[in-house]
Amino acid sequence: MSSAPERRLRADRARQAADVIRRQVVQRSYPDGVLPDERFLAAEFSASRNTIREALALLREEGLIERVPGVGTVVVTEKCVHGLDRLMGLAETLHEQGEVTNDIRAAGPIRPPSSVARRLRLADGEPVVYVERLRRLDGLPLSLDLTYLPVDVGAPLLAQDLRNHDIFSLIEQTSGQRLGAADVALEAVNADLHSATVLEVPRGAALLVVERLSHFADGRPVDLEFIRLRGDRLTMRAVLDRRD
Amino acid sequence: MSSAPERRLRADRARQAADVIRRQVVQRSYPDGVLPDERFLAAEFSASRNTIREALALLREEGLIERVPGVGTVVVTEKCVHGLDRLMGLAETLHEQGEVTNDIRAAGPIRPPSSVARRLRLADGEPVVYVERLRRLDGLPLSLDLTYLPVDVGAPLLAQDLRNHDIFSLIEQTSGQRLGAADVALEAVNADLHSATVLEVPRGAALLVVERLSHFADGRPVDLEFIRLRGDRLTMRAVLDRRD
Repeated sequence: MSSAPERRLRADRARQAADVIRRQVVQRSYPDGVLPDERFLAAEFSASRNTIREALALLREEGLIERVPGVGTVVVTEKCVHGLDRLMGLAETLHEQGEVTNDIRAAGPIRPPSSVARRLRLADGEPVVYVERLRRLDGLPLSLDLTYLPVDVGAPLLAQDLRNHDIFSLIEQTSGQRLGAADVALEAVNADLHSATVLEVPRGAALLVVERLSHFADGRPVDLEFIRLRGDRLTMRAVLDRRD
Repeated sequence: MSSAPERRLRADRARQAADVIRRQVVQRSYPDGVLPDERFLAAEFSASRNTIREALALLREEGLIERVPGVGTVVVTEKCVHGLDRLMGLAETLHEQGEVTNDIRAAGPIRPPSSVARRLRLADGEPVVYVERLRRLDGLPLSLDLTYLPVDVGAPLLAQDLRNHDIFSLIEQTSGQRLGAADVALEAVNADLHSATVLEVPRGAALLVVERLSHFADGRPVDLEFIRLRGDRLTMRAVLDRRD
């Protein structure tokens, strides 16, 4: 059965402290990005200094903090925040956090697999426009996006500045229609070797994998994306309601 | 600059096919959980059989499919689906997908770190009730949840059946108050050794890490949770709206 919180393994107590410190790091709550010293943290968490050391080791392993001689423990990764509440393009949502640019790895018409055609409500055999982008925030890879668009929506984008603009805003501009709702599915997946190379992370690094089907305001599905986001660079945020 | 979609590396084409097949697997779209054969998939994706083999290798690496001699390629993991639209307890949201039980790893009062006290709007030095649960779906570990509750909300739970009930429903029962909204932050993180052991996954396995602060309907924050979910067992779903 259960045990009193203070009588658990050090590893459990270290994880418990690490979770709280992680949020402080991600929310940039430590002034100048320097963590309090071990003695302070030990008092704060009613824990031994060994437990705190183990907690900090977990966050170092995640690449969030580093120990700098003469300075202390400092935050080395700033995660950016992507809202899950509203349907927004990456540049739109991150405009205060840095500059988004896109390497266009592929752009043109393809014959889609039938499950993609079905999701976009296209007849079998109808082509789609496929766009593959490596998206960067301030130059560093953030996500790899594979996008399928019906030809009437996608073809006009091929003449646009895909490098510097979100597909969402380009769709709304060129079509004259507003986007409405999107269905989103989200998973955590270890990076395969090739995706890891493209995203400049170690093989096996934790990625957020998002599948998102966006519709025009009238309900027509027009943009199916498969997105790999670097787990070390991004936090998703949402407000959920409990309603019946 | 960009290249035509058909002139890319095989690894890029394999990833593209793997993403579409992954969704089919997760959505249980293949009858009896058996994938079509390589020749069919090659035609479906306008790809070579080598590309399809590489795509299937990626999904095997993720532990989603296996090759079974005499049968073909079969789905071996069924991911369960957790809605991100509504604030719901795990048992509540998964009741059609299996039975949720909880190992209570710790339950009792602790002195919280000040950032936890602040988020729950408690005075410094006020105790909280801490509950740590390993949550299982049909016996298999699904998530590890670390929960902080104000004493007036948490203490009555200690006499309740935490093993078989969601904390959300127990809170509403014992307090007589309804939960309202929750702030959620979501990340992908590689499992540290100890968490991996508890969750029965390999070290480094991709986890969804969720921090969730739930409030009563009147706005008072009453339940702060740090949750590690096995990436190989769970998909999160949401519908997003594009509104200004």
